[in-house]
Amino acid sequence: MRFYEDISVGDRQTSDGYRISKEEITEFGEKYDPQPFHTDEEAAKSSVFGGLVASGWQTAAICMRLHVQSNEDTATQAGLGVDELRWHRPLRPGDELRLRTEILDKRPSESNPNRGIVTTGHEGLNQDDDLVVSYEATALVQRRADSSE
Amino acid sequence: MRFYEDISVGDRQTSDGYRISKEEITEFGEKYDPQPFHTDEEAAKSSVFGGLVASGWQTAAICMRLHVQSNEDTATQAGLGVDELRWHRPLRPGDELRLRTEILDKRPSESNPNRGIVTTGHEGLNQDDDLVVSYEATALVQRRADSSE
Repeated sequence: MRFYEDISVGDRQTSDGYRISKEEITEFGEKYDPQPFHTDEEAAKSSVFGGLVASGWQTAAICMRLHVQSNEDTATQAGLGVDELRWHRPLRPGDELRLRTEILDKRPSESNPNRGIVTTGHEGLNQDDDLVVSYEATALVQRRADSSE
Repeated sequence: MRFYEDISVGDRQTSDGYRISKEEITEFGEKYDPQPFHTDEEAAKSSVFGGLVASGWQTAAICMRLHVQSNEDTATQAGLGVDELRWHRPLRPGDELRLRTEILDKRPSESNPNRGIVTTGHEGLNQDDDLVVSYEATALVQRRADSSE
């Protein structure tokens, strides 16, 4: 397991890619974000996007998936929150999203000696290396039982 | 249609409730947030949550759905971003989430006279009125063609 003590500010990762289909965009849109530019290919043509695009919440959720897959061995206890979530460019059917992360900050929890608080910068990029989505996520990570850091 | 000019700072709404099932939690978890406390009822018992809980991204996505349903007539063009997204309490199987919103800020776009920028505070509450999730979302809203505001 990778604990709080094993994480260093400045650590970087780049994930594999995740290709999104039209069906996945409309399925998520119908369930969680039923605006025409996420659910209706024809209506989307007259939107500011000029066509179907993924919900911004879906692009963030895909980043979460890519992050979890790249950090399966990390002892994450819970997510606390996210700051500065920005949707820079739309994600369109057939686009491939990959995630670039960097550890921005870590500090021990003041209320619980068994955990630390880690802030990670996330950037979701498409196949052309254009920035699609970015945010900073803060999570609780378990400390080593024998830690004296 | 409800345009930028029809929105006032201080406007408030409360949505209907949305009840979440165990199956919906694990389905979203397996697809977008495959951590044991979102996907595996047994493993979740030994997590800090003591049982299965919805992904924080799913609680935010449900808030989005409730917001869209309450504002189908608003001429929203695109979401720009979200600040201060916080997960205060877990959402568990059978819980019902409802959304309370308040318009916090509005200003004309400097780059495009056909749109304005609106910031809305969101609070997702469970059936006991406990705060589950909160954030501030900023979106582009179309202006009336004949507006001189």
